[in-house]
Amino acid sequence: MPFVRISLNREADPSYVAAISDGVHRALVEAVNVPVDDRFQVISRHETAEIVCAQEYLGIRHSDAIVFIQITLNTGRTVEQKRALYAKIADLLGVSPGVPRADIVINLVEVAKENWSFGDGIAQYAT
Amino acid sequence: MPFVRISLNREADPSYVAAISDGVHRALVEAVNVPVDDRFQVISRHETAEIVCAQEYLGIRHSDAIVFIQITLNTGRTVEQKRALYAKIADLLGVSPGVPRADIVINLVEVAKENWSFGDGIAQYAT
Amino acid sequence: MPFVRISLNREADPSYVAAISDGVHRALVEAVNVPVDDRFQVISRHETAEIVCAQEYLGIRHSDAIVFIQITLNTGRTVEQKRALYAKIADLLGVSPGVPRADIVINLVEVAKENWSFGDGIAQYAT
Repeated sequence: MPFVRISLNREADPSYVAAISDGVHRALVEAVNVPVDDRFQVISRHETAEIVCAQEYLGIRHSDAIVFIQITLNTGRTVEQKRALYAKIADLLGVSPGVPRADIVINLVEVAKENWSFGDGIAQYAT
Repeated sequence: MPFVRISLNREADPSYVAAISDGVHRALVEAVNVPVDDRFQVISRHETAEIVCAQEYLGIRHSDAIVFIQITLNTGRTVEQKRALYAKIADLLGVSPGVPRADIVINLVEVAKENWSFGDGIAQYAT
Repeated sequence: MPFVRISLNREADPSYVAAISDGVHRALVEAVNVPVDDRFQVISRHETAEIVCAQEYLGIRHSDAIVFIQITLNTGRTVEQKRALYAKIADLLGVSPGVPRADIVINLVEVAKENWSFGDGIAQYAT
């Protein structure tokens, strides 16, 4: 159910991108109870000029290594679960592939559980 | 008002992509009363490694033909209308261009009616 | 906090794209009180066939110069603030780089303030 859009620099090599993909998914599984096979991600690679941020916001300095992670998921996670998710993503991507923690920018978009179809034209989560 | 993001494999040829674009729009018109000229879509094409999903989730097996369809639209559709939309998209894309039904993954993001400007700097739907 | 996705034609040259990026951000700062350094944008460039709209909707005619601007931001702006934002974006992009006002299509997605991490794995806006 989470649908994850990862946007990053075109220069990143495939193994680097794969490690980010794996880390974000593992964080969702470990921090907010997403099933292991509930993995849907789109990765978009951009020229440096196409990923725009200020050099510094809230005391955090950003580099060209910045990664934007936008996660659409069901409503209902608590603030504490969201905090745990952000920390876990930063921890995992910091280890592999080694994204600077300052350069991991995350945004959640929450939707109702009937807002998904995972194939076959069915609303699998609707009750 | 629906704003539709379609993400699929770069290998898809233009006529295949156009059929998906047409089918998704027709489903919105037929299943949830979207006006025929209310069509706003962005199509993103990706390398195989950039569209990530588990081989199987909820008993549905996915292939490289997977298509992600994220639709931002006004709040207010019922669960039944959403079910009808998913079924219609799967039916139409199954016929043309022949996307495997299992490979059609849909997500809805709902917003308020004043959250749109369709040009000229005006909030056309705000009351 | 706003996370801005700008989608436009691949033919646009870099200075044209940069002017759109600057104008959208300045409008957010001037119309809805976004901090100057709170700037996070991803720009996606597409072939003409990948940006789809009807020729005309609600009496507004669109051209290949169409630009889709999807802004994820915190809930809480009034309808009047949203109207001011749309007008300001159209005003600024109309002057530089000279986007036709009819071709500026904007959509807002609103989220809770704890739905952001701006780096370091922290939910900077959560209370």
